[in-house]
Amino acid sequence: MITENIFFIMNIIGLLAFAVVGSLKGIKKGLDLLGITVLGIMTALGGGITRDLLVNTIPYALMYPNDIIVSLIGVWLAIVVFKVFNEDISNKYIIQIPDAIGLSAFTTTGAMIAFNFEVSFFGVIILATLTGVGGGIISDILLQKTPSALTEDFYASCSIIGAVSFYLCILSNVNFEISAVICSIIVLMVRIVAILCKWSLPKFYSEK
Amino acid sequence: MITENIFFIMNIIGLLAFAVVGSLKGIKKGLDLLGITVLGIMTALGGGITRDLLVNTIPYALMYPNDIIVSLIGVWLAIVVFKVFNEDISNKYIIQIPDAIGLSAFTTTGAMIAFNFEVSFFGVIILATLTGVGGGIISDILLQKTPSALTEDFYASCSIIGAVSFYLCILSNVNFEISAVICSIIVLMVRIVAILCKWSLPKFYSEK
Amino acid sequence: MITENIFFIMNIIGLLAFAVVGSLKGIKKGLDLLGITVLGIMTALGGGITRDLLVNTIPYALMYPNDIIVSLIGVWLAIVVFKVFNEDISNKYIIQIPDAIGLSAFTTTGAMIAFNFEVSFFGVIILATLTGVGGGIISDILLQKTPSALTEDFYASCSIIGAVSFYLCILSNVNFEISAVICSIIVLMVRIVAILCKWSLPKFYSEK
Repeated sequence: MITENIFFIMNIIGLLAFAVVGSLKGIKKGLDLLGITVLGIMTALGGGITRDLLVNTIPYALMYPNDIIVSLIGVWLAIVVFKVFNEDISNKYIIQIPDAIGLSAFTTTGAMIAFNFEVSFFGVIILATLTGVGGGIISDILLQKTPSALTEDFYASCSIIGAVSFYLCILSNVNFEISAVICSIIVLMVRIVAILCKWSLPKFYSEK
Repeated sequence: MITENIFFIMNIIGLLAFAVVGSLKGIKKGLDLLGITVLGIMTALGGGITRDLLVNTIPYALMYPNDIIVSLIGVWLAIVVFKVFNEDISNKYIIQIPDAIGLSAFTTTGAMIAFNFEVSFFGVIILATLTGVGGGIISDILLQKTPSALTEDFYASCSIIGAVSFYLCILSNVNFEISAVICSIIVLMVRIVAILCKWSLPKFYSEK
Repeated sequence: MITENIFFIMNIIGLLAFAVVGSLKGIKKGLDLLGITVLGIMTALGGGITRDLLVNTIPYALMYPNDIIVSLIGVWLAIVVFKVFNEDISNKYIIQIPDAIGLSAFTTTGAMIAFNFEVSFFGVIILATLTGVGGGIISDILLQKTPSALTEDFYASCSIIGAVSFYLCILSNVNFEISAVICSIIVLMVRIVAILCKWSLPKFYSEK
């Protein structure tokens, strides 16, 4: 019961943060109101929709209006904030922390659903990570940016670490629900540490 | 019966127009014959394929050859027109009006199928709009353009208005088929007015 | 039995070659270790995943770990080769021939699966070709390149020729398994000839 409520709240925070980040990307790219809305919604829901497609389910976001309404509020927030402060908040802590909460919540729901479909170890990692970062990748593709999840710092890696932890917990016969909580805490902690310490992964080539 | 025939004709006009527009994009980008064909086919069929994926159906375009044959004729038309007139007709009325008819037909079929799968209000709008503009978005992504449906004038908005009308009609107990006809007429009318009056949506930021 | 073993080996060679090519693309684009891994895996598995999505199956790559492990070995190989030789081998015969074997194996499995789902003639061609070239297209999209399968020389065309041969064999009542072998031989031969003779398709417009 308590766990459910925690995830419910984390999910809403995540949808709002992802929608704000996506809408701001669209605003800065000079999209019109519709384009901004699409960017915001796709950033918030794109990961979950991709996950549902991969396990052959009609996307939750199409069946129930809740998530879309929350995302629309995020889009509206982004526009208001941009008009009032005329400022990009997507790299500030005020948005990075909610974004980390969203990454954590989405990764965990992805891992849980993956487990229910009895996919392989790698399947769990892929579905969990895609649920977490898929929305950002889709919005970057729509804007012709190399997806920042593939180039920058320690972001998708947090999802992978969380998904592996989840799988190890389940293997060790930890209760399903507790495994999910552990997964979400690990993603959140690792991401926050990564932000604070400016972690990044090794590269092998610099383009110029 | 008459309705079916009208949709049958609208669908063919739309496929032809979308295939011509997509192929011309490919020709101008310097793609080879295969690339041009793929662009034309994906612009014509991409929206419907995306819709079918989202509702977990094997895409109609894979099961039956009709739509692909019509699209191939569109590709061939585009190449002939380009060789003969050496001219980009994609922004001329001669292609914009058939394109509007296609947008209208595709939006309506999207809304009808969405309704049959009992998705939410937003689900109807998303599926109807994606069916209408998804092909153009896919071809823009293949060519590294920010999808024009997200940046330019009043295009996807026509689909949204049509889908909302469709939903309102159904809610008001209007007959399913009549709702579809109303939807398609509204999309077509709004789009033609938008072309003539050069409507556009507000933006909040200009990139430079 | 022998056929199965041949396909098993061709599939592994193809996965390795595709993963190496994809990872090298990522290395040269300056992606980090995660980005390189994603590029390598998606290039190797993207075509098969797209095919499975289109026929409404949960992707094989999510259900069983084999293909992903082979792809990861390919990613590791690419990094080692790049560190040791500091050299792009993706346009050398040492990678182009294994890549052709992969194109051949993937095209054939795509055609076989398409046939089992009773899609149309065009459906067979589309699924076979997508399985062969889809991974490369996805990785090009992630890196903002116009997919080389649509712009350059005679690559996807080999898949199309193979798929048509497969369909004609089946129509002529040739045994299913023998049709598959013929398909794979034709794709491989045509691709190798295309590399050696530098074949390309006609274009109609040069961008400058």
